[in-house]
Amino acid sequence: GVTDPAAAARAVRAGDRRALARAVTLVESARADHREAAEALLAELAAAPAGADTLRIAVSGAPGVGKSTFVEAFGLHLLERGRRLAVLAIDPSSARSGGAVLGDKTRMAELARAEAAFVRPSPSGGASGGVARGARDAVLLCEAAGFDTVIVETVGAGQSEIAARDLADMVVLLVAPGGGDELQGIKRGVVEVADLVVATKEDGAFADRARRTCADYAAALRLMRPATPGWTPRALSCSALERRGLDAVREAVEAFAAATAETAAARRAEQAVAWMRAELRAALEQRLRAAPAVSARLESLERRVASGALPPAAAARALVAAFLDGAG
Amino acid sequence: GVTDPAAAARAVRAGDRRALARAVTLVESARADHREAAEALLAELAAAPAGADTLRIAVSGAPGVGKSTFVEAFGLHLLERGRRLAVLAIDPSSARSGGAVLGDKTRMAELARAEAAFVRPSPSGGASGGVARGARDAVLLCEAAGFDTVIVETVGAGQSEIAARDLADMVVLLVAPGGGDELQGIKRGVVEVADLVVATKEDGAFADRARRTCADYAAALRLMRPATPGWTPRALSCSALERRGLDAVREAVEAFAAATAETAAARRAEQAVAWMRAELRAALEQRLRAAPAVSARLESLERRVASGALPPAAAARALVAAFLDGAG
Repeated sequence: GVTDPAAAARAVRAGDRRALARAVTLVESARADHREAAEALLAELAAAPAGADTLRIAVSGAPGVGKSTFVEAFGLHLLERGRRLAVLAIDPSSARSGGAVLGDKTRMAELARAEAAFVRPSPSGGASGGVARGARDAVLLCEAAGFDTVIVETVGAGQSEIAARDLADMVVLLVAPGGGDELQGIKRGVVEVADLVVATKEDGAFADRARRTCADYAAALRLMRPATPGWTPRALSCSALERRGLDAVREAVEAFAAATAETAAARRAEQAVAWMRAELRAALEQRLRAAPAVSARLESLERRVASGALPPAAAARALVAAFLDGAG
Repeated sequence: GVTDPAAAARAVRAGDRRALARAVTLVESARADHREAAEALLAELAAAPAGADTLRIAVSGAPGVGKSTFVEAFGLHLLERGRRLAVLAIDPSSARSGGAVLGDKTRMAELARAEAAFVRPSPSGGASGGVARGARDAVLLCEAAGFDTVIVETVGAGQSEIAARDLADMVVLLVAPGGGDELQGIKRGVVEVADLVVATKEDGAFADRARRTCADYAAALRLMRPATPGWTPRALSCSALERRGLDAVREAVEAFAAATAETAAARRAEQAVAWMRAELRAALEQRLRAAPAVSARLESLERRVASGALPPAAAARALVAAFLDGAG
C-alpha cells in the first residue's frame, strides 16, 4: 500500500531503515500510482533538503572487475573513519541479465550488517531511464535519512556511466589488471568521465599487472581534459582482498571533495536542471510515440529514412505535425 | 531566389559546381522558405540516391593543430590517386569566433583550384543544430554531384565531433605534437570516437615530439573500445608541410574502408534514423519553448529545480502538461 507522504518523509528523516527501504522501492517503481506517491514524498523532502556537505560517489566498472569486493572493503574503511554510508546500484541491463547485480550485492554481507551503512541490493528493474531516475531519487532519500556518503554502483555499460556522471559529485572507475587487449572491454566515454581510476586486485599474481595498468591509465588520463573543473584525475591501484591501498583511495576522494567544494553546489544545481530536461525529453517522446497519428506512421517513416529514400528532417517534420497539429 | 527543385537536382547531378554551391547554401540556411526548398531538393535527390561506394571522413582537431594544412596536402594526395574530393566544414562556434574557419579555408588555395575537388569554405553560421544538419545534407549533395570522397572538417569542440561521428563513416583526429599538459586541451569524448589519430607537424623541431605524441596516442587507443566495429584504431604521424607520411594515412583510410565495407550501409542507415530522432527532439523542444503556457513558467521552474526545492520529474511533468494539455 502507498503511505501518507508526510509520514513517510518524517520516518525517512528519522533514519528509519525500513521506511527508507520502502521509499527507495517507491521511487524505483514505474507504476503510475507509485510515481505519484514518490513525487509527493520527494516534494515533502525537497521542502527542507538535507545539508550540502554530503558526497555522492559513482563507482563504475566492467563486470568481473571486483566492484562489490572493492565497495565492501572501501565502505568498511569509510565507516571506520566515522562516515555514514549508503550503497545503491544502477543496472540498466538487470532486466536482461536476470539480476547479476543482485547476485553481486548479496556478497556485501559485512557492510550490510553495519549500523552506519545502508546497502540497497539492486534496483527493481524496468526501463533504463526509470532505473536511472530511481537511483537519483534514492540518493536524495539516503541523504535525507542522514547518510553523508552515497556510493552509486554502476556496471559502466554504455549510457549508465553518463547517468552516473549526472547524479554523482565524483566518478571512480574501477579497472581490472590486464595487458593491452583486455582493456578494450571498457566502453567508450567511461574513462573520460572518471575523476579517479582505480586498478583493482593488486594482490598475488596480479599485483604487478595492476600497478602497470595503473601507470597505463595515468598516462591515458594525461591525454584527457579533466572531467570535473578544478580537479586533475588520478590513477591508483589497490587490493580490496588484502585491504591495501584503500587509504590512498580515501585520501584522493577527500582531496577531490576539498578541491571542488566551492563549485559543488553549482554543479548539483546544473545536474538537477539537466535531469529535468532529460525527464522532459523522455516524457515528450513517450507522449509522441503513444499518439495514434504518430504510431501509425513511425515505423514506415523510419524505414524510408534508413533506406535513404526520405530525408531525416522531412520525416521529423511530418511526425511533429502529426503529433502537435493533428496532421495525418 | 529559390529555384525549381527538380532543375536544381539535375544541375547538381550533372556536376555543376555553381549549382552545388548554391544548393549547399540552401541546405545551410535557417530561413523557413529556404528550409522548404532544401527539403524539396533533398527529396528529389533521395528518390535516386548516389552509390554507396563513397567515403565520408570527418577530420577533427583543436584550433592550431594544422587542420587546413593537413586537409590540403592530404586532399591533393587523394586527387593524385584519382579520387574526386569534396571538403566541407562544421564550425558550431562560427557565430562567436567570427569565422575563424573561413579564414583557415581561404588558405586551401591549391586544393580549391583543382578540377576534381570542391572546397566549401565555411557554413553560413547559425545555430549548432542547424549547421550540423546543413553539413549532413551538404555531404549528400556532394555525393550526388559525383564526389566519391567527402572530408568534413570540424574544430572538435564539444558537441561537434559527436555530430561528426553521426555523419561520417570514419573519424580522423588530428593532434598537435606536444608533451603532457598541452594535450589536455582535447575535449572529452573526442579521442574515443576516433578511428585514426594523426599527429601533425612531424617536421623540423617538432618531428621527435610528433612521433612521441603518436606513440602516446597509440597507447591510449589500446585502452579504448574501437569506435567502429571491425576496425582497430591506429595512430600515425605525418608532415603535411613536407608531404611525408600521407601515404600511410591514405593506406589506413583504405584499410578502414575495406575492413568496414560490409557494415557501412547498415551504419549509414542507423545514422539516418538517429538524425531523424535528433531532428524530432530539436523540433519538439523548439515548439515546447515557444508555447506561451511553457515559456511563462520555464524559468521559475528551472530555478526551483536548481535550488533543490522542486524535484526534476515534477517540474518536467508540469511542463509537459502545460505544453500538451493546456494545463496552466
